[in-house]
Amino acid sequence: MPKAKEITSRSENYSQWYNDIVLKAELADHAPVRGCMVIRPNGFAIWEKLSSELDRRIKATGVAGRKHRNAYFPLFIPESYLAREAEHVEGFVPECAVVTHGGGKELEEKLYIRPTSETVMYEMYSKWISSYRDLPLLLNQWANVVRWELRPRLFLRTTEFLWQEGHTAHETHEEAIEEALMILRDVYVDTVESVMAIPVLRGKKTPSQRFPGALDTYCIEALMQDGKALQMGTTHDLGQNFARAFNVRYQDRKGKMQYVWQTSWGVSTRLIGALIMAHSDDSGLVLPPKLAPIQVVIVPIYKSDEQKQKVLEVATKLEKEILETGVSVELDLREEFKPGYKFYDWEMRGVPLRIEIGPRDIEAGQVTFAHRDSGEKTQAPLAAAAQKAAETLTDIQKGLFEKAKKFLDEHSCETDDYEELKKITDESGGFVWAPWCGNQECEQRIQDETKATVRLVPFDAPQTNAKCIACPEAASMRVPFAKAY
Amino acid sequence: MPKAKEITSRSENYSQWYNDIVLKAELADHAPVRGCMVIRPNGFAIWEKLSSELDRRIKATGVAGRKHRNAYFPLFIPESYLAREAEHVEGFVPECAVVTHGGGKELEEKLYIRPTSETVMYEMYSKWISSYRDLPLLLNQWANVVRWELRPRLFLRTTEFLWQEGHTAHETHEEAIEEALMILRDVYVDTVESVMAIPVLRGKKTPSQRFPGALDTYCIEALMQDGKALQMGTTHDLGQNFARAFNVRYQDRKGKMQYVWQTSWGVSTRLIGALIMAHSDDSGLVLPPKLAPIQVVIVPIYKSDEQKQKVLEVATKLEKEILETGVSVELDLREEFKPGYKFYDWEMRGVPLRIEIGPRDIEAGQVTFAHRDSGEKTQAPLAAAAQKAAETLTDIQKGLFEKAKKFLDEHSCETDDYEELKKITDESGGFVWAPWCGNQECEQRIQDETKATVRLVPFDAPQTNAKCIACPEAASMRVPFAKAY
Repeated sequence: MPKAKEITSRSENYSQWYNDIVLKAELADHAPVRGCMVIRPNGFAIWEKLSSELDRRIKATGVAGRKHRNAYFPLFIPESYLAREAEHVEGFVPECAVVTHGGGKELEEKLYIRPTSETVMYEMYSKWISSYRDLPLLLNQWANVVRWELRPRLFLRTTEFLWQEGHTAHETHEEAIEEALMILRDVYVDTVESVMAIPVLRGKKTPSQRFPGALDTYCIEALMQDGKALQMGTTHDLGQNFARAFNVRYQDRKGKMQYVWQTSWGVSTRLIGALIMAHSDDSGLVLPPKLAPIQVVIVPIYKSDEQKQKVLEVATKLEKEILETGVSVELDLREEFKPGYKFYDWEMRGVPLRIEIGPRDIEAGQVTFAHRDSGEKTQAPLAAAAQKAAETLTDIQKGLFEKAKKFLDEHSCETDDYEELKKITDESGGFVWAPWCGNQECEQRIQDETKATVRLVPFDAPQTNAKCIACPEAASMRVPFAKAY
Repeated sequence: MPKAKEITSRSENYSQWYNDIVLKAELADHAPVRGCMVIRPNGFAIWEKLSSELDRRIKATGVAGRKHRNAYFPLFIPESYLAREAEHVEGFVPECAVVTHGGGKELEEKLYIRPTSETVMYEMYSKWISSYRDLPLLLNQWANVVRWELRPRLFLRTTEFLWQEGHTAHETHEEAIEEALMILRDVYVDTVESVMAIPVLRGKKTPSQRFPGALDTYCIEALMQDGKALQMGTTHDLGQNFARAFNVRYQDRKGKMQYVWQTSWGVSTRLIGALIMAHSDDSGLVLPPKLAPIQVVIVPIYKSDEQKQKVLEVATKLEKEILETGVSVELDLREEFKPGYKFYDWEMRGVPLRIEIGPRDIEAGQVTFAHRDSGEKTQAPLAAAAQKAAETLTDIQKGLFEKAKKFLDEHSCETDDYEELKKITDESGGFVWAPWCGNQECEQRIQDETKATVRLVPFDAPQTNAKCIACPEAASMRVPFAKAY
């Protein structure tokens, strides 16, 4: 008999545990070019579900009576474009891939593979926008981007990755800020919390961690099981920086030419890395039902041909009933594997609910539910199994969020003591809420000494009368420090 | 008042007519890098509909009890990979974009931006496939590819384009051929004819026009309004050529190692170019309802405020009723444009059905339907307008196919006379069915002298006793010659 694939435990080697799940659940594989990945069907099916949840929310939202629409902009960015916004060029050029030849000839101007598309998009915006009537312009694109990665990790940091990038232009700064905050809340937080079942902190990045060229970067941060934080998504208030660099102007309601106010925002296949690390366990992948390509698997159990016939008849009927409730289900008919192997196999692949049906179950008019999240086994009456399965998936979705929230709460603490901050971030990890004066010097010193960074300045940052954790200055608020991916 | 955008007529300048529609209906725009395009929201919404129709069919089909699944492979292909299949490297390397620098350093090995993904995918297949149990492997990806284009045309020939590429591996040659033919029939022909409303010829490419590295290329060809043919999609029987180059082997049912049999197949954003050229007219874009992002537009007509209130009340109610039938509808509330301008504007943008509602219509309990395809105006009872609109869209979809089929039939003829073939392909264009001996020399000579090529060898090629149109040899069949995009 084939042996179930083994997964390194988290306590033994967290990083190996993560790689094992990605490779053995066949979510992704290393590509021939270092730093690149192949997203395999099991992984891509999750991305299809996740991106469609995001896309639906992006299209349903907007400002000033308009909704976002999708478009597609080119892969290639002329070298001179990237150079136009000073911070932007400094932030991105070092990690770019450069095309020097095309169609058998050396190019007159080098082309950069887009690391992000502000420059090429806003060049077009400057052609398309002429009046306040053209505003707001609310576009999004789904695309691949390339940022050279020296320490690649599948999904988490890859040289090429897939993402969506929204780029909007507005009449006023207020409206641009409204857009950036709305996307963070109604698209990113909503998808991450209600679909991915991962609770997040939300707030502003500190100035040192802003997107190159932005006035402000808003973000959401989640906590992984090893106590490290992971940035889940960002939205940027670009002010008029790019508008000036690319001359994106409009005639306002009084006939005067004005620069537009812009935002950009994106989330990527990195979210799949977060999804894996937030919920999975030592048996393999754990997926929230809303993102599981297969939500229910039915494993038939039999010994004789006679039993087989009866069991498969009942299992096939149940499969059909489950499908009719809108739940995706697979009946595992593989002859070459025993049920025990199938159990391990589907657990490793993260199917939220396994239904076991054997002759004794049928006699008793029931089936066995094995819950992937808790490992719990329960019985359900056969006649109500389809309905019960759908309810169980809802419970699992809710349970995963609650479990992750509990983990977040248990790994969040307050301290005013620098040594304790060091100790906690070194040992158990998590978010350490400490008073901060707001100066970059203190932020940098803490980072250098502890590797922990200010993950964000929360929108509802707790007020404090304490002194800054790293200097004698007064701190006005507490911010969460953590090591991060 | 703003003036409606003008479109060059087909008879005046067909090529300019096409560009006018693409630019003025805001389907696409020229990107900063020559040969690349920006797909604007109006064009991208068509691609979203078209690709989702294709994706649904791809996922619903398969062979040997398995279905196709989506995956994602990297943009970068190492130079050495492209070189492994001799015909493939010769066919593609001259049109590739080459990355020589990444992350601020010169690369040890140059990377090619994928022009198609056989090589990088099959390197992975050789890792993943070990037994006949792993077969068939049926993968598809949606991706951008780059082929340097010297004479670019928006959608039709662009340096970067979007497409899907399917890549499958099989135990037997028979199964691979079955796959290639099935995709052509059940995915490509079905989508192009029943969704795009464009009739096609189907058959095999001649050896000179095969995909580089394939044993056979199957294809579908459509006729544009200028009498030129356009290749709509291809599927390739790759035999074991790539399997040998990339060592893709499996242990067969008897325990022996065998090379797999492979196929690949793709359609691209080029289809949008075909869609425009097949149906549109001198008033602008004409879209089949199944691909129209907005299927119905309601234009309210009023002069006084009193009229406006009444008309908008009725129009809003109708909009809601239409939405409820599952049809996408927009109520044009723009104050700055008069109804006449709106009529032209929506005609230019290709909305299949316009509903006009004015005070007199309401009094008479009816509305006016303006059919974009025929220009016809009909009346519908107001109470049944939503239902009638849905029916009209079905009629328009059918009517567009019939019109295109009639055009195809009227532009297809038979001749045994070389001078006549020359004359027809020079003047009216269309498919000229002529006897051909099957030799490449004749094919080449005809192409050199007339610019017409054998578009395909039809699956049901008519038998003939005539001599080859270009030499004294006997021809066994008639094949369609045409100039092509």
